[in-house]
Amino acid sequence: MKQRITLKKIAKEFGVSISTVSKALKDSHEISEETRGRIKAFADFYNYKPNSLALQLRSQKTKVIGVIIPEIVHHFFSTVIDGIERYAIEKGYNVMVCLSNESYEKEVSNFNLLTNGSVDGLIVSIARETQENQQFKHYEGLIKDDFPLVLFDRINDDLNCDKVIIDDIGGAYKATNHLIEIGSKRIALLTTQDFITVGSLRKEGYLYALKSNGIEVDESLIYKIDDNQNLYDQIEKVINVPNPPDAILAVNEIYAANALICAKERGLVIPTDIAIIGFTSGLISEFTSPPLSCIVQHGYLMGQQAAELLINRIEHTGPKEFQKEVISPNLKIRKSTLLDH
Amino acid sequence: MKQRITLKKIAKEFGVSISTVSKALKDSHEISEETRGRIKAFADFYNYKPNSLALQLRSQKTKVIGVIIPEIVHHFFSTVIDGIERYAIEKGYNVMVCLSNESYEKEVSNFNLLTNGSVDGLIVSIARETQENQQFKHYEGLIKDDFPLVLFDRINDDLNCDKVIIDDIGGAYKATNHLIEIGSKRIALLTTQDFITVGSLRKEGYLYALKSNGIEVDESLIYKIDDNQNLYDQIEKVINVPNPPDAILAVNEIYAANALICAKERGLVIPTDIAIIGFTSGLISEFTSPPLSCIVQHGYLMGQQAAELLINRIEHTGPKEFQKEVISPNLKIRKSTLLDH
Repeated sequence: MKQRITLKKIAKEFGVSISTVSKALKDSHEISEETRGRIKAFADFYNYKPNSLALQLRSQKTKVIGVIIPEIVHHFFSTVIDGIERYAIEKGYNVMVCLSNESYEKEVSNFNLLTNGSVDGLIVSIARETQENQQFKHYEGLIKDDFPLVLFDRINDDLNCDKVIIDDIGGAYKATNHLIEIGSKRIALLTTQDFITVGSLRKEGYLYALKSNGIEVDESLIYKIDDNQNLYDQIEKVINVPNPPDAILAVNEIYAANALICAKERGLVIPTDIAIIGFTSGLISEFTSPPLSCIVQHGYLMGQQAAELLINRIEHTGPKEFQKEVISPNLKIRKSTLLDH
Repeated sequence: MKQRITLKKIAKEFGVSISTVSKALKDSHEISEETRGRIKAFADFYNYKPNSLALQLRSQKTKVIGVIIPEIVHHFFSTVIDGIERYAIEKGYNVMVCLSNESYEKEVSNFNLLTNGSVDGLIVSIARETQENQQFKHYEGLIKDDFPLVLFDRINDDLNCDKVIIDDIGGAYKATNHLIEIGSKRIALLTTQDFITVGSLRKEGYLYALKSNGIEVDESLIYKIDDNQNLYDQIEKVINVPNPPDAILAVNEIYAANALICAKERGLVIPTDIAIIGFTSGLISEFTSPPLSCIVQHGYLMGQQAAELLINRIEHTGPKEFQKEVISPNLKIRKSTLLDH
């Protein structure tokens, strides 16, 4: 029987590093075709068993972070990825991003793809369908296996892992208070369906601000946008009416920008007839006329913090208990809620 | 010596599928912890050699497409990813996205990460630094290895692979012609540094339209924005001057939207004093006042076509020769270039 060959012995034979041999056997393009060919032929001849390599690889870190986001069209998720990416680079990690497209099935398939040895840990914002159906088995499986996992923005409180959120209740409370301070009496809320946690938390902040200012809640001013219907048509039903609200709080920038266009079409002056403010991490608000006030979501910061929590978890450098970091959003007051006195 | 054990024999022993055994040995979370433990213990006991598995995996397709984009903040790349994703899902592929952050080194590191058995093919838009330094060895290496590769938007014509671009010259030509038709005489161009191929192609289309309309080129109206300097300050130098241009063609939406804000600050009326049009795949243009005319980049379509070319290449179902698909951009005329007569 031939002598049992190891990576180390092959490396010594060729006068190269173990890492070069490992890469050559994995057919890496970093190694020249000729060297790869010679190393592979040698390994084959000595019947090299990659078990030891496989084991070594499995225990080795990949230095890659996996990220799963529901969609990429909202600028918010782009800024989060940017934040994750910048922090990860500094710490020597690569980032791989997959989209769930709001689908439970796609989310599970991304989980299987990424946790199959490709990444050291996952940063995830939960898909709409997963939240709607409350199907969290795939998360529970990872957690049971001590696989590093950080949830951000769209989270589930029952899952035992690190989390980063913004203070959605506080942000909506601040914004509603600001509208009350400038004299608004009939503040409409443009929000999402209730199963989107961020939408329902922002509604909570809105209700809390009204109550603490002694303003009675008018349920007819709370509009839950259905993402499967035409957005502008739904917003028209709120604004293009005989007695429109005198202020609008929108849970995202697209709702706010459409409300602004709709109010102007209706002949309303912003902010005197109707003041508008929206949650945002985007660029649209700066360029509308008047520019839109907003509750700044700090997507970039959220990404950085999520990456920091994850890398601490991977490298066992953070606290042992799971963390829930809460980012305080601040108001950026622009002309859409700025009354001249 | 113990009998040589195979995946098939292990599968038979446990009454499960080969795929289940393979997943269990790879520690997949799809398989219950208990089953994984039993299968792995059995495989260890019979000294199962994963070579055959490794070989099988290497020749097997991963059914994953890798995508490398320069950055994620411009909406254009988000729409391309959306297009890739939708086409890929239909064909049963997953998508993994990495960012080069415009860095050559980061691009190379993404190449190594993704082509190391994780994906069946790559869709790439070249990083700014790579284009500036003309360092394409990593691309040439892949091409030599017949690794399926599609370049989009920022390409290099010397690389022998499939490509998808938009007709940048044609788009700029159409837009400049449109400005001439509405009576503009002094059309400024807000473009990028020359090494960004799309910027220099758009400049070519602009020059060609001027020439074919018998308008002399005024070099002082061509402004190359430096992305490392403050954007608004640079745009002010074009517009906030004694004799501003009467039209602006911007090579992206951010330049166009800033030009619009700057012109309004300067007291110019859009489009009577100054008409503005920009290349875009974004949302800002719809919400400015007046809304911005634009050359539609069709990012979604570009993503779909890139994915189609790549999957054809992976599955050997397309033409043998490399394809270069050129998408024709169309003009979307909005109020920023619409003169009332």
